[in-house]
Order: sequence, then structure tokens, then C-alpha cells
Amino acid sequence: MADDIRAVSWHDDHVEILDQTRLPSSEEYLKCRQYEEVACAIERLSVRGAPAIGVAAAMAYARAAFQSEAQSTGSMMNYLETAYRRLIDTRPTAVNLRWALERMRACAETAIQNGVSAVRDALKKEALLIAREDVEINRRIGRNGREIIPRKATVMTICNTGSLATGGYGTALGVVRAAVEEGKEVFVAACETRPLLQGARLTAWELQKDGIAFELIADSVAGSYMARKKVDLVIAGADRIAANGDAANKIGTYSLAVLAREHDVPFYIAAPLSTVDTGIASGDEIPIEERPADEITRVMQQPVAPAGVAVWNPAFDVVPNDCITGIITEAGILSQPYDRSIHNCFTQT
Amino acid sequence: MADDIRAVSWHDDHVEILDQTRLPSSEEYLKCRQYEEVACAIERLSVRGAPAIGVAAAMAYARAAFQSEAQSTGSMMNYLETAYRRLIDTRPTAVNLRWALERMRACAETAIQNGVSAVRDALKKEALLIAREDVEINRRIGRNGREIIPRKATVMTICNTGSLATGGYGTALGVVRAAVEEGKEVFVAACETRPLLQGARLTAWELQKDGIAFELIADSVAGSYMARKKVDLVIAGADRIAANGDAANKIGTYSLAVLAREHDVPFYIAAPLSTVDTGIASGDEIPIEERPADEITRVMQQPVAPAGVAVWNPAFDVVPNDCITGIITEAGILSQPYDRSIHNCFTQT
Repeated sequence: MADDIRAVSWHDDHVEILDQTRLPSSEEYLKCRQYEEVACAIERLSVRGAPAIGVAAAMAYARAAFQSEAQSTGSMMNYLETAYRRLIDTRPTAVNLRWALERMRACAETAIQNGVSAVRDALKKEALLIAREDVEINRRIGRNGREIIPRKATVMTICNTGSLATGGYGTALGVVRAAVEEGKEVFVAACETRPLLQGARLTAWELQKDGIAFELIADSVAGSYMARKKVDLVIAGADRIAANGDAANKIGTYSLAVLAREHDVPFYIAAPLSTVDTGIASGDEIPIEERPADEITRVMQQPVAPAGVAVWNPAFDVVPNDCITGIITEAGILSQPYDRSIHNCFTQT
Repeated sequence: MADDIRAVSWHDDHVEILDQTRLPSSEEYLKCRQYEEVACAIERLSVRGAPAIGVAAAMAYARAAFQSEAQSTGSMMNYLETAYRRLIDTRPTAVNLRWALERMRACAETAIQNGVSAVRDALKKEALLIAREDVEINRRIGRNGREIIPRKATVMTICNTGSLATGGYGTALGVVRAAVEEGKEVFVAACETRPLLQGARLTAWELQKDGIAFELIADSVAGSYMARKKVDLVIAGADRIAANGDAANKIGTYSLAVLAREHDVPFYIAAPLSTVDTGIASGDEIPIEERPADEITRVMQQPVAPAGVAVWNPAFDVVPNDCITGIITEAGILSQPYDRSIHNCFTQT
């Protein structure tokens, strides 16, 4: 079962990362003894998906405490702060990275009172807790979300939001998994997700392992799919959700949302509350990562465009809140107006 | 200049086809001595683009007359009919193929009265005329279309609609060329056009050769591009236009049209009148070619998805007439209501 897959896992002397850039051709694991190696793995997308990035960064921060030979609490905290800054700069859009690192830093600040050895133990425990909690949160997202899935349904999705993108189980794919576990007949229309083909390489791989029926489509097929076949709902993940419900996710999600509205197809975001950034008012403030041109001009290392062409390669786009039917979280399905439902959610939690 | 490129050309003993499946890495030409070789070249997309397919089929039909060793007019016409049937079955969506072959068949029926030798000469002349006329028609489309381009404009386009897709010059790209020739400052946002990447491989190649400024984007970026950058208009080609103005074109065009309307961006189709099929009332009747799964599961021969995944790979979609601001033809820019403007156009011509 693909929901047993762990994108990131803790070992005594290293953080193990399933190298997702090599999937589906080969299943290779990176053994990262240094936090720097985890930072590089995040940057080159060996591990990706907002919740999985959070887990990886938390474990890397804990590794830093073990790497450090600091004897004094002051030099340990300095070392950890350097790790914090290196890790938080790896990717700009997914806010779970910051969320996880801030939680780890707060843990360090408390534990350091008991010395450098205590901080190591506490950080290891906290990182493992974040990973475990993420799986549990995903299962709750799944249970909350499966209610909206008809008994027999076609769900369209983009990118990968499964075990590979999270601590395990998945967000949008977690909702699909939960509906299937409940006995619902779910068919997935998986957008391949250029440029890095996470839909073709990763979602197809997970769904195939789980025996969930699906078909793979080019991203440009989505509109035609809604017009010619039946799509019951679109569910996407998110990398950052603003206080007003605007949601940043993989490039192409915005187009899907507009097309869904055009075809009266409900459009949902599935994400943990750690993806919500209540510090920003709207999607306009979400930093959108722009990635290198060669992700467009090359596919699987092979050139597909003439040399030297100009490229615009934003990795994410923003779905405005008015295109979103509901945001499926571990605390329930948030609905419009999102400024209120999000606010309530955080004041209740 | 890329507008000097000839996708298809006639030679004494063969039809020469620039193998577009090899572009941009290498510029290779196929020498097709038999009409069967042209049919295969059309099927495997060595030549593509509705007008270019029409030209290639016309030349292949003429080649058939030279291949045939028929002495009697009856056996010559039988031979040509076999070629007609083989060629018309190569691709289902683009109507220019049928248009060109019907014109060639009518030419044969007239010329056969003067014997088998006369039919060969007449068909060669007719095929060359179709090719020459197509370039002239494209230039007229360009002149008619350049009026709608602002003095400084960003034009978004999909697939390849340039010299490579036509007898020469191009339809949607022909409009861009004509505007640039008139001194307008045109910037092109070129969608890469999965699965076969005609935007990345062919449009980028043509624009680069012509020194027209552009940037290449993943198809899924189009919505975000319209939301975050300024797009003045979208211009696409067409493979078949119904009597009511519904237009079939490369998969993804429908999504672009919906996104353009969402962002108040005018959306134009540029195509010769030979692309109009007045025999069908609406886009519902346009046959949509579905192509093999491996166009999605492999890129440049390399696997990008797990083996055995199900795929839906329609090569075209249909833009409903109400999404189309205007249809740029050699006879002028047709506007809504299209049933009337198309009807008038054909009764006047």
C-alpha cells in the first residue's frame, strides 16, 4: 500500500529521504547525516509537498542538534539558529516549512534550559511527533473530506498530494483514500502536472500501488474532460492559505478552479491547518517561487526546446477564495466566508 | 527567416517533408516517392497543422498519379480513388485534408477526359496551386488580423500555427508576423502544448529564427499568466470550424478560451476558409482524434509514468462560438453571430 510509504523518516544517525526525483523508475533513498543534505534535498525536490517539507525540515533541525559538538547552551542555540536560517530559505511558498521550524525552535528554547543533551532528546521527540501528527491529521482530513464524495464519483486532482507529499496518507489523495476505504467507488482523473510531472510520476505510482482506478491526462485536457466526461469534484492540495482563504498550490491549480466554476464542478482544497498563514491577509502576499528555465526546456534531462529560449516558470499559482467550494482540514470543512471560518478555526483550536 | 521554411514541397520524383518530429534537435527531410509514405508521415505527425496536412495530401494524391502505371483512364481513376481513401483516413479532425483531397479529385475528374497523361500534369499543377494559394491566403489572414494587434502587445498562443503548420507563413503566427512586419512591438507567450510540445519544439524554433520576442510557458501557466501579467489577446489556429463557429483546435485551446473570457482577454481563431466545414451544424459533430497513451506516458522516448497506466489523450478540443471574439480569415474577420457571418462568407465567395 502506498499509504505505508514514508517520504521522510528518522534513523539514529541520519534522516532518510525517498528521492522522488527518481520515481517511478527507481526507488532510491538518500541518507542525510547533515542538515545541509536535507536542505539540498528539499531544494532539488527529492522531497516535496508542503507537509512533507515541514516534516523533513523538522527532522533536519533535530539532526543539527546531534551534529553540533557544542558544549555550551549558547553555542548550541547559535548552531541551531544557523540551521534554522539555512532550512527556512530552501523554498519560499509552502508555509509548513516555517511552521515546522518555528515549532522546533520553540521546543529548543524550552529544552535548552536543561542543557545541550536535553535539547537533542527533545528535538528528536518533537520531530517524530510532527511526523506522527501529520499522518493523524491527514487521516482526519480524509475522514472529514470523504463525506463530500458521492458513492460513485470521479475526482480530478493535480500534482501529488499523497503519502509522498506528506508525513503519510495524504491530503487531497487522503480524501480519496478515505472514501475508497469506506467502500465508495472513486475514479481519479490525474493531471500530469508539468513541468515536473508529479501527477504522472508520483500520483499515478501511488494510485497504482493502492489499486485505485484512475486515468492520467495532460494538464490541458482538464477543460475538455469537464465538458465531455463527468467530473464530480476537483480536490487539490495547498502550499499556503491566506487568512481570507486564497490558496497557493501547484501551478495549474488556478486554471482548474476557473474551469471547475465554468462547469459547475465543486472545487475543494484539502490541507492541514499548518498550511494556513493567518499572518497574511490575501493571496497577493504569498511569495510565488519561480524555478529554472530548464524545467521547461528539458524533460527527463532531454532538450525539448531550442537552446536559449526565454521561459517563465512559476511553480505555484493562487486560487482566489471565491473559486473554492470548501477547505477540507483536520478541524472540518471550512466554508465561505473564509476570513470568518478560518478565524473561528484558529480561535477555537 | 522561418517564414521561408516549407513544411512540404514538390520535387520531380518525390514530395519532400520536413520531419517535424525531429525538430528542433535536427532538421531532416523525408523524400516520399510513394503516396503511402506521405500518408505515414501525416499519421506519425512528421507533417502536422491543418493547412499543411491539406497541402501534403494534395501533393501525395498528385504523386499517386505519377506512381500509377495505368494506361486506361478507368484504371487511373481507380488508382487515384484508392489513394484518396488511404489519405483521407490518416487523421480525422482537420477538415482541410478532406477539402484538399476533394479539390484534387474534382481536378482529376475533369482532366481525365484528356487522358492519363493529362491527369498527371493537371494534378501536379493543382497541388502546387493549393500550396501557393495557402501561402497567399495566410498572408491575407495576416494582413486582416494585424489590425486587431495593439502597437505594443502580448499575444498568447498554443501549438504551432506558423510556416510549419501551413503552406508557409502561418495562420495565428502569420497574424503575429504581419503585425511585426508592420512595425508593431509584439511579444508572444507560447504555450508548450503537451503532449507533443509543438509550442516548445516548433513555435519557439520559428519565433527564434524570426527574432520575434517570446517566452515559453507550461500550458498550466496560462491562467496565472493572464492574472499576473498582461495578455492583450489570445490567437489560436483551428483544425475544423463548424457552421455555427464552434472551432476544434489543439487540446488545451478550450481551456485558454475559458480563461481568456474570465480575464476579459479577447480570444481569436485564425484559419483559412478551407478549415470551415459548413456541412456540420456545431462542434458536437466534429470527430475528435484520440491518440496513443504513450504520448503521455513517454516524453522524447523516455518513460515519465509507471508502466501500464490508463490515459485519456484527445488531440483536440472544441471552443464554443460564444468564447470566440472573432475568426480571422482571408476574407476578413468574421464576428458573432457566426452562423450568419460564415454563411455570408460562403455565399459571397
